[in-house]
Amino acid sequence: MRLRHKPWAREELNKNPELVMQNPEGLKGNWEKPFEKAQPLYVEVGTGKGQFLTGMAQLYPEINFIGVERYESVLLTAMERAEQAGLQNLKFLSEDVANLSDFFAEGEIDRLFINFTDPWPKTRHAKRRLTHEHFLGLYQQLLTKNGEIHFKTDNQGLFEYSLHSMSTYGMSLKNVSLDLHSSEMENNVMTEYEEKFSAKGMRIFRLEATFQ
Amino acid sequence: MRLRHKPWAREELNKNPELVMQNPEGLKGNWEKPFEKAQPLYVEVGTGKGQFLTGMAQLYPEINFIGVERYESVLLTAMERAEQAGLQNLKFLSEDVANLSDFFAEGEIDRLFINFTDPWPKTRHAKRRLTHEHFLGLYQQLLTKNGEIHFKTDNQGLFEYSLHSMSTYGMSLKNVSLDLHSSEMENNVMTEYEEKFSAKGMRIFRLEATFQ
Repeated sequence: MRLRHKPWAREELNKNPELVMQNPEGLKGNWEKPFEKAQPLYVEVGTGKGQFLTGMAQLYPEINFIGVERYESVLLTAMERAEQAGLQNLKFLSEDVANLSDFFAEGEIDRLFINFTDPWPKTRHAKRRLTHEHFLGLYQQLLTKNGEIHFKTDNQGLFEYSLHSMSTYGMSLKNVSLDLHSSEMENNVMTEYEEKFSAKGMRIFRLEATFQ
Repeated sequence: MRLRHKPWAREELNKNPELVMQNPEGLKGNWEKPFEKAQPLYVEVGTGKGQFLTGMAQLYPEINFIGVERYESVLLTAMERAEQAGLQNLKFLSEDVANLSDFFAEGEIDRLFINFTDPWPKTRHAKRRLTHEHFLGLYQQLLTKNGEIHFKTDNQGLFEYSLHSMSTYGMSLKNVSLDLHSSEMENNVMTEYEEKFSAKGMRIFRLEATFQ
């Protein structure tokens, strides 16, 4: 994604502490508190401009959603989008995914979304991929026992790598789609990338995975 | 594959007992016997007209190959092809894959190939797919501990199903390719189907899997 440097982004994010959590460490283990209702918690890592999660939060009011994004200028767009939608079940963290266990307790997350994450194509950068075994270990710790990871990408190399990484980690894969927009998935909420790439006729890959 | 009924096929197959094994039950646990050399054993299930396995046997003289095919009229073509190639490291079984444990002992097979097998697209026929958990259990029994399954198909639905089936069985997947002929696999021997479909620009899917 093209990143514009916006030095004022942090300041803007701070203006809406209801939406962008200021002290997420303090909410670890108590994520029902900042939401209106205590209900299942779904987290998107690398939430980008927030189109997917805003769409999901509208579609599923019975779920609490949190988007984690480390780029402040990108998160700002997500925040503005969420403000307009006026949703009670959506919050954001301006944080790095690698630090997820600082903000969430073991088994606190019911579902995790990884959408169109950076493929880091060079082998020496494999550890940075959000489906590297190092991250899978982190997700396993934070997800409930039956918790699912839902993963979408247009990047063939990243999907091939993730099939290897997840299966070798011992995960079970289901509802695998090697061409999402030619299959019959209901209620597929598209990300910004997905809309752009699938409009160009590019293939979207998707899977669901559990640690059982 | 289009099957022509050839009532004389059985008779023809019987004419070359060096190539098409007549009493495979008797060789169970002793598959070094009918070959010239005692060397690793690679088996293809559903070998069809034998183009893949003949090519492999030529490329890898240090491996013994066996092709298993239940349709006699199809196997006849494979036999004739192998006769012309005059290979010492290639044999065939005119048998059903479901009965594989009648012919091979536990841990006797070093590698198993599944190429362009019937996708059986209807859910009620899932048990017939050669990557159904029922078959995976059979392969696990017959493969050596580190034995690999190499699987290729042009059928997206079968590949998606197999990713689910194999990962849920606990298998590890590696070298996954979601577009084989755009990737850089060396020494890829093509099957008849593969040659036909990839010439039409169709995507070929491939993976390697182990039970560890």
